[in-house]
Amino acid sequence: MELTGHSLIGQSSVPGAGTRFTAIDAATGEPMSPSFGSLSPDQVDQACHLAAKAFDAYRETPPNERARFLDTIADEIEALGDGLIRRAMAESGLPRPRLEGERGRTCNQLRLFATVVQRGEWMDVRVDTAQPERTPMPRSDLRQRHIGIGPVAVFGASNFPLAFSVAGGDTASALAAGCPVVVKAHPAHPGTSELVGRAIQRAIARCDLAEGVFSLIFDAGHDAGATLVAHPDIQAVGFTGSRTGGLALTRIAQSRPQPIPVYAEMSSINPVFLFPEALQHRADDLAEGFVASMTLGAGQFCTNPGLVLAVRGDDLNRFVETAARRVRETKAQTMLTPGIAEAYRTGCLKRADAANQVAQGEPGPSNLAGRSTLFKARAAEFRKNPTLREEVFGAASVIVECDDLDEMQALAEQLEGQLTATLQLDDGDWTAVQRLVPTLERRAGRLLVNGWPTGVEVCDAMVHGGPFPATTDTRSTSVGSAAIQRFLRPVCYQDFPETLLPASLRDDNPFGVSRLVNGEREYR
Amino acid sequence: MELTGHSLIGQSSVPGAGTRFTAIDAATGEPMSPSFGSLSPDQVDQACHLAAKAFDAYRETPPNERARFLDTIADEIEALGDGLIRRAMAESGLPRPRLEGERGRTCNQLRLFATVVQRGEWMDVRVDTAQPERTPMPRSDLRQRHIGIGPVAVFGASNFPLAFSVAGGDTASALAAGCPVVVKAHPAHPGTSELVGRAIQRAIARCDLAEGVFSLIFDAGHDAGATLVAHPDIQAVGFTGSRTGGLALTRIAQSRPQPIPVYAEMSSINPVFLFPEALQHRADDLAEGFVASMTLGAGQFCTNPGLVLAVRGDDLNRFVETAARRVRETKAQTMLTPGIAEAYRTGCLKRADAANQVAQGEPGPSNLAGRSTLFKARAAEFRKNPTLREEVFGAASVIVECDDLDEMQALAEQLEGQLTATLQLDDGDWTAVQRLVPTLERRAGRLLVNGWPTGVEVCDAMVHGGPFPATTDTRSTSVGSAAIQRFLRPVCYQDFPETLLPASLRDDNPFGVSRLVNGEREYR
Repeated sequence: MELTGHSLIGQSSVPGAGTRFTAIDAATGEPMSPSFGSLSPDQVDQACHLAAKAFDAYRETPPNERARFLDTIADEIEALGDGLIRRAMAESGLPRPRLEGERGRTCNQLRLFATVVQRGEWMDVRVDTAQPERTPMPRSDLRQRHIGIGPVAVFGASNFPLAFSVAGGDTASALAAGCPVVVKAHPAHPGTSELVGRAIQRAIARCDLAEGVFSLIFDAGHDAGATLVAHPDIQAVGFTGSRTGGLALTRIAQSRPQPIPVYAEMSSINPVFLFPEALQHRADDLAEGFVASMTLGAGQFCTNPGLVLAVRGDDLNRFVETAARRVRETKAQTMLTPGIAEAYRTGCLKRADAANQVAQGEPGPSNLAGRSTLFKARAAEFRKNPTLREEVFGAASVIVECDDLDEMQALAEQLEGQLTATLQLDDGDWTAVQRLVPTLERRAGRLLVNGWPTGVEVCDAMVHGGPFPATTDTRSTSVGSAAIQRFLRPVCYQDFPETLLPASLRDDNPFGVSRLVNGEREYR
Repeated sequence: MELTGHSLIGQSSVPGAGTRFTAIDAATGEPMSPSFGSLSPDQVDQACHLAAKAFDAYRETPPNERARFLDTIADEIEALGDGLIRRAMAESGLPRPRLEGERGRTCNQLRLFATVVQRGEWMDVRVDTAQPERTPMPRSDLRQRHIGIGPVAVFGASNFPLAFSVAGGDTASALAAGCPVVVKAHPAHPGTSELVGRAIQRAIARCDLAEGVFSLIFDAGHDAGATLVAHPDIQAVGFTGSRTGGLALTRIAQSRPQPIPVYAEMSSINPVFLFPEALQHRADDLAEGFVASMTLGAGQFCTNPGLVLAVRGDDLNRFVETAARRVRETKAQTMLTPGIAEAYRTGCLKRADAANQVAQGEPGPSNLAGRSTLFKARAAEFRKNPTLREEVFGAASVIVECDDLDEMQALAEQLEGQLTATLQLDDGDWTAVQRLVPTLERRAGRLLVNGWPTGVEVCDAMVHGGPFPATTDTRSTSVGSAAIQRFLRPVCYQDFPETLLPASLRDDNPFGVSRLVNGEREYR
C-alpha cells in the first residue's frame, strides 16, 4: 500500500516527467507525500493506444467474464482496507462515515453493473429473419446488437473521491459497456486515486484481460486531460465537475476531426417548491429538513438544494426564521480543497450583493472550512440577477419569495436545466402541483415529492441527469444502471452466416438474452 | 389538391413574405407553378411557439391515440392518390415505380411506428419500490420513464421526397416519441411537400390534436432553417443531406445558449470488400450486382457503393472489365436537381485527376442527367488523395487495387465512419473475413455479407447510422424502429403519490408495458 506517485499505463507503473504536485491535507492545507509527476502527451498517447489495442477483445468478452471482472474490482477495493479510507479522509476532508458509505456505494455500483451486464438487455438484440419469398422485394436477414463505443476518457470528480472517481459510476458503466477506460485522476485526491487504480490493475491481471482495458494518468494541470479528449483513439468522455470544465472538454471534443460525445454533469441549483398547504402545516419541519440537506457534506453535492421557491406570507416567514436559526447553529465544515473553499467564499460575497443574507453558520478554524449561508430575495430580484441562478458550490441557498402561485410557475418556466426539482406538498396542494409538474418534467431529470434531493440512489430507475446546463446530454443518466447506455452504439448484420455472427446474435442465443424477434419480444 | 405555395403553421395556411421560388422540373429544367414564398423569422418563431405550446399535451397522449394519429397520416397520404406521385415525379425526376415504392415505404414506416408506440418499450419503464426498513438508509420509491425531448426540427432530404421528407423517417419517429415537429421543406420538391404537409394537417384535425404538433415551413435559402435550429423551443434536429449542410446545422445547434442534439446523416462511401475466393468464383456476377447497386436511382442513395477494395490480379481484372462494360451500357439518368447534377459532374472531373477513369455510361439528353462513372486506383494513390475517399453523390465509384489482404485490412482501418460495409465472400475467405470484421464494426453501422448496400429495410433490426462523418451521432439510427430513441429522454419520479404519477408508472400499469421492477423484467 506504499504510494509511488506514478501513473498506471496498462500493467506498468510510469513516473511522469512533467510538473510534480502533491495532495493537500484538506484540514490543514499542508502538502502530503508522495509527489506525483504529470504525464507527457507521449505518455497519454501510449495509454490511449493500449486502450484501442485492447478494445476489440474486451468488447467481445462474454457477459459472465465481464461481470466477474467488475466484481473482482469491487473485491480488490475492499481489500485495500482502512488505508484507503484514511488517505481519502486526509485528501478530501470528508469524515470517515461518509467515506465508508461511499466505498460501499462504489463497490455496490460495480456489482450492480455486473448484474446488468449479465442481464444482457444493454445488447438490445433485435432479429428480423429473412423473407426470401416476399414481393416485390425479398427481405434480408437483419440482426442488431449494441457494442461498446470505444475507449472512454473518465475524469475523476473532486466531490466523490471514490463513487465518482477512478472506479466510480463513469468507469463502472463504461467497463460494463465493453469500453476500455483511461482515467484522468482528480489532482485533489491523487493518493486515493493511485490506490483504487492499482486495485483495478490487479483485477485485470486476475481476470487475464488485455492490460489496455484500464490506465490512470496524473497531471497537475489540464494538459493531459486535453490531450486525452483530443486523442483519436478516445470515443467518449465522462465528466462530473464545474460548468467551465465541462464546457472546455466539450469544445475540445467537438473540435476534433471526428467529434465525440461528452457526458458532463456540470451545474444545478436543484429548486425546491414549497406549496401553500405544506408550508402552512409543516413550516418548521420543512425548514429542518431543508437545512439538513443544504448543509450535508458542506453542501458539496451536485444535488444540493440551492434554491427554494414559495409564496410570501406568514408561513414562509416562519420557514425562513426556523431555517435561519438552524443555519446559524451549523458549524463550518472543511471543504474538499482550498480552491473550492475560496470559490465558495467569493460566490457568497457576490451573492450578498444581489440578495439579502439572512443567516450564516459559525465560522471555522480556518479559511478551509465553509460557513453555511442563507439568502432571501424577491422574485423580481431573482429574475434580474443571474448571479442568484448560478450554482455556488457549497452550503449556500436562496429563498425566493413569490407573490402568488402564478409567479412561482412563471419562475419555474424560466429556470435552466436541473438535475432535480423537489415538491413539498400536502393533499390540498395537488391542483397547483399538477399544473407545475409538466414544466418541471421539461426542466429536470428527477422530480421528488416530500423528500430532499441529496442522496442519489444507485438503482435501475435513477436519473442523475437533466437538460443543459445540468448535463451536456439530457438523453442520459450518470448514476444508476441506465448509465451503461451512454457508452454503446448499435451495429446491424445483414445476411451473416451463423458462424460469422457475433455470439449474441446467433439463433441459439447462447447468452440467453431477451430479444425482439420479428416484432415480438422473446424473453430469456 | 390545388397547391397554394403557402407554409403550414399549425392549422393555418400562411403565405411567406420573403423570396419566392418554384420547383424545377428535373427533366426539363423548367420552373413549375405555383411559386412558394419564404417565411420570415417571425413566422418561423410562430411555428416553434405553437409546437412548444402543443408539447406537454401531445407527449402525454395515450399510446393508442398516438398510434391512431400515425396511422391516420398514412391513410391521408394514400388518399392523395396519383396526384402526389405525378408531382413528385416531375419535381424529383425519379421514375414512377420508385416513387410508388417510396410512398409504400413511407406509409409502412408510419404504421410501423404506430405499433412501436403501442408496444411501449420506448418508455423504458423502471420501478424500484420503496424499502422503508433498509439500513443504514431507507430507499425511496423511484420510477423512471422516457418522455419526448421536445419540439423537433426536421429537414426534408432531396433524395427521398417522400420517405425522408415531410412525413419521412425523422418525422415519424419524432411524432412517435411524443415530439411536435416543424419541418423545413426541401426546396427541390415544395409541391410534394405541401401535399404531404396538408395530409398531416388533416390527420391532426381528425385526431383532435393540438395544432402545433406539426408545421411545415418553406424557404428558398438557408435562413429559415438556421432560425429554426437556433430557436429556443426546438430541442433536437433531424437531417439527411450533405456533410456541409449537416455540419452547418450542428454548429448552429452547438452555439445555442442551450446546445441541442443534431442527428445528421451526411456522408458515406460504403466500401465493398471483394475477398479472393468470391472474386475467383464469381467475378462476373459480382460485377453485375455491383454496377446495378451503384447505378440504382442514378446513384443518389446514402448507401451507394462508392468504393470497392480487392487484391489485384486476374480475378480482379475480370471484375473490372465486366463492371466497365456494364457501366458503358448504362444510360444517363435525370438527377434530382440541376445543382446535384452539376456537383456530380464537377466531382467526377476532380476525381479523374486522382484516379484512372475506366468507364463512363452513355451521355444523357442534357446536363441534367448524370453519366455513371467508374474509376480505378492503386492503394497508394487512394491513400494519398483524399478526393478518392470523399463521397461523390451520384453513380461514381472507385475500385482500389491492394497488393494483398494485409494492405486491404490496413486501408479499412484508415477509412472514415461509414453507414455500411459490404463483404463479398466464399467459404474459403472466412479466416480473412473474421480478421476484418472487428475493424468494420468500428467503422460502420451495418455490415452486409454477399449483398449490396442499397435498399435499406425499415424494420426493428436496421441500423442506418454509423461513426462520424456517416452521421453526427453514432449512437443512433435514422431508419427502423430504433430511430424513436433519438427523441426521448429519461425522467425519474421519487416518492410520487400514485395519483400524481404519470399513468405509465402507476402500479396497475394501464398501458400494459414491459417494466423493469426491482431488477426483474416484467412482461406485458
